[in-house]
Amino acid sequence: MAEEAVVFVGSKPVMNYVLATLTQLNEGASKVVIKARGKAISRAVDVAEIVKNRFMPNVKVSDIRIDTEELESEQGRIVNVSTIEIELVKE
Amino acid sequence: MAEEAVVFVGSKPVMNYVLATLTQLNEGASKVVIKARGKAISRAVDVAEIVKNRFMPNVKVSDIRIDTEELESEQGRIVNVSTIEIELVKE
Repeated sequence: MAEEAVVFVGSKPVMNYVLATLTQLNEGASKVVIKARGKAISRAVDVAEIVKNRFMPNVKVSDIRIDTEELESEQGRIVNVSTIEIELVKE
Repeated sequence: MAEEAVVFVGSKPVMNYVLATLTQLNEGASKVVIKARGKAISRAVDVAEIVKNRFMPNVKVSDIRIDTEELESEQGRIVNVSTIEIELVKE
């Protein structure tokens, strides 16, 4: 099992991503990075908070990084989109 | 001028909050904390990124904190809402 796992948060229900994160942590990953862009950023924070508060009190946030990505829209325009990476580690 | 200022991000256009943050930084605040809850969290990240990348390259993110607040809904139910605090400092 990879030491570090990644969960990409999109537009599905938040519990999908909570389950994915719990699965990674229970299958041996010592660190899980929750990644999201744009409007999904709020959901990524929800995922981290629900995993910590409701399921795994021994998991802590070790780092949070925000950044900007340049994406090409369907019309070919360059659009800036914010990104977040929330690092969860088992203590 | 207070050393530390706070900008609460809600549902207005993102540039409203970018302007508020720039104003605080230009009027002497050495640190601005951008705060948001729920769906406005994505917008708070946008605000921090736009301030840093487009207007004030000498401003850095010094800390990011996420947490959960318990709010009472209109029906009197207790609802958990995620929160974020993004700390910007002038270098």
